[in-house]
Amino acid sequence: MGVITLATDFGLEDPYLGIMKGVILKINPKAVIVDLTHSLSNKRLLEAAFILNTTTPYFPAGTIHLTVVDPEVGGNRRLIAIKDRDQIWLGPDNGILTLVVKKNPKASLFNLSNRKYFLKNISATFHGRDILAPAAAHLSLGVSLKDLGEPISDPLLLPIPEPEIMADKVIGQVLWADHFGNLITNIRQEQLRPFLSSSSVKIQIGNKTISQFHQTYSQGKPGRLMALIGSSGYLEIASNLGSAAEILGFRPAKTIAIAVTF
Amino acid sequence: MGVITLATDFGLEDPYLGIMKGVILKINPKAVIVDLTHSLSNKRLLEAAFILNTTTPYFPAGTIHLTVVDPEVGGNRRLIAIKDRDQIWLGPDNGILTLVVKKNPKASLFNLSNRKYFLKNISATFHGRDILAPAAAHLSLGVSLKDLGEPISDPLLLPIPEPEIMADKVIGQVLWADHFGNLITNIRQEQLRPFLSSSSVKIQIGNKTISQFHQTYSQGKPGRLMALIGSSGYLEIASNLGSAAEILGFRPAKTIAIAVTF
Amino acid sequence: MGVITLATDFGLEDPYLGIMKGVILKINPKAVIVDLTHSLSNKRLLEAAFILNTTTPYFPAGTIHLTVVDPEVGGNRRLIAIKDRDQIWLGPDNGILTLVVKKNPKASLFNLSNRKYFLKNISATFHGRDILAPAAAHLSLGVSLKDLGEPISDPLLLPIPEPEIMADKVIGQVLWADHFGNLITNIRQEQLRPFLSSSSVKIQIGNKTISQFHQTYSQGKPGRLMALIGSSGYLEIASNLGSAAEILGFRPAKTIAIAVTF
Repeated sequence: MGVITLATDFGLEDPYLGIMKGVILKINPKAVIVDLTHSLSNKRLLEAAFILNTTTPYFPAGTIHLTVVDPEVGGNRRLIAIKDRDQIWLGPDNGILTLVVKKNPKASLFNLSNRKYFLKNISATFHGRDILAPAAAHLSLGVSLKDLGEPISDPLLLPIPEPEIMADKVIGQVLWADHFGNLITNIRQEQLRPFLSSSSVKIQIGNKTISQFHQTYSQGKPGRLMALIGSSGYLEIASNLGSAAEILGFRPAKTIAIAVTF
Repeated sequence: MGVITLATDFGLEDPYLGIMKGVILKINPKAVIVDLTHSLSNKRLLEAAFILNTTTPYFPAGTIHLTVVDPEVGGNRRLIAIKDRDQIWLGPDNGILTLVVKKNPKASLFNLSNRKYFLKNISATFHGRDILAPAAAHLSLGVSLKDLGEPISDPLLLPIPEPEIMADKVIGQVLWADHFGNLITNIRQEQLRPFLSSSSVKIQIGNKTISQFHQTYSQGKPGRLMALIGSSGYLEIASNLGSAAEILGFRPAKTIAIAVTF
Repeated sequence: MGVITLATDFGLEDPYLGIMKGVILKINPKAVIVDLTHSLSNKRLLEAAFILNTTTPYFPAGTIHLTVVDPEVGGNRRLIAIKDRDQIWLGPDNGILTLVVKKNPKASLFNLSNRKYFLKNISATFHGRDILAPAAAHLSLGVSLKDLGEPISDPLLLPIPEPEIMADKVIGQVLWADHFGNLITNIRQEQLRPFLSSSSVKIQIGNKTISQFHQTYSQGKPGRLMALIGSSGYLEIASNLGSAAEILGFRPAKTIAIAVTF
């Protein structure tokens, strides 16, 4: 057994993703492969880091998460593995795993340097296929992380934009927009909790103001913006039966600030 | 074992789908998960109902079909299960399962109310993850439907547009357009059968007229409209090596009438 | 067990792909199904042939590859199977398997004519579901290829554009563009090898000239064209953090010549 998830910037048209699955199944025919998303982008590594972070709690112990957003493939960047409590993350050392490290200060980190677990021929341009996929497959067969390379302690970490919390105000920013046009921010439920049931609140985003929190999408007036706590515990701006991203002119990689005043 | 299919309006970019698969595999590591489509839309529930209806006959007995098009998540709508002859359907009680019910007047229906089979923390905005996915996984492990909730008999049913059948004429409508631009109508093969080999027929759609039935796409003149019985047994308007949807200016949710005269 | 890959022109919105998976799992519940790509096109069969060709080496022995790009479904074209060294390819006899045949001159070929292994009801428009998927599933259970039909020796082969190799020049063409906008050509590494480390080289493509080979994408100047050997061993035109396809105005099915002069 062994669940292996894949999150990449490959899209779905090309054969690259299927090839990685072939590599995994050739090594471990019983691996169960799950696609997380293949719409990540090297221009939005922070967004990728947050998206990956929301999935972990829902996967079985022992799951191996393979992330390939790797514009520096073949250069000096390392390929690393992080063992958090009961799952393993693999990917390039470019910051995409920042939140996994931050959430698990005691996590073990390794540099995947042992050529014994690489494919025989290593291209200069597709280490997802030649190094990461074989590593995931071998791990799923029970190979130990420390056999795959040496411990490291200096992973590249991206600066994570933390919300600013004041006595009567929280200021944060939009991290990403989902398929429904919901805008997910970096403000966590806990940071708003004392105020979530407050009757006087002002949420400022772009040139719009929202004056209350809702619980569910369907409570919102169609076509209007609304605020609620999304399914991963972050403050979300949405629009019932519509798209908050469209209303606010959201574009990937554009920063949109949000201020919650009580 | 146990096949679980997923049909949603989630698209493929977001982590939501992967998360639901994680939830399922955490409960039943041997579940075999199959994606049906993630391009459904709450604005086109009827189309979704027809698409789901075409898949059932091809799946193994015991398959569990999980459908999540759920704009009312967290509100009053129920989550229901329908056991037809040898397969089970799960989804919100918003009409998306209308055809499953209509085809199986003796099907057993249940309201998924037993919190024992929910995830521990229930969000107000993602019951696909918190209630439906665990229900599917537990069912695939052999839990009985009646353990998941109480029987019901009043599912919400959408009005299904039935074709109008006259002595020399059948009037129907386009239900959906597939990836190739083929327009699938609600007129069934049986409703046309006595006339399918007729030499004089007039099929009126939009401002176009088609004057015969073909058997296969490649019999049509490239760039012209043609009529044939599609692979699921419905009358279909197509264009060999082209797109009938483009020729007729089809847009999702736009109603296009079709009249077959003998 | 048994890995079955699927490569089609179905896209991902429709239920057709899920239905084929249902058919396979109904016959062999233990089949492991892998999606290669569903973005192939009957207008670009050559591209499809090359894409499929790059995947084979990475899959386990015994893998069955199922390809459905079949605009002539229901007409006279045959459905065929090709057994190369340790894997099996199935698809319509329209040239999509040309490279599999060319690489394996001794491969065994069969016409899938034995109705015993078809679904009971055969539509005229979806043989992927009714004939190919059942064939793949039965093969994965150990049924012999020669039980599925009679041997043939005259598969339809597409003309493959071979690069022209001169004393100081290689002239080839772009075969396809991937998701990153990398343009993959038909010039193989071996055909360039003596020159790859040459210090004076001129690569002419469209109205642009590139004057050296690089090893990795990240060595290129952002926004400029670069040339390197891609992960499947073909000469590739790329742009670090950008899209060569965009820079050169690439469109599918448009022929772009490339000349490498030493």
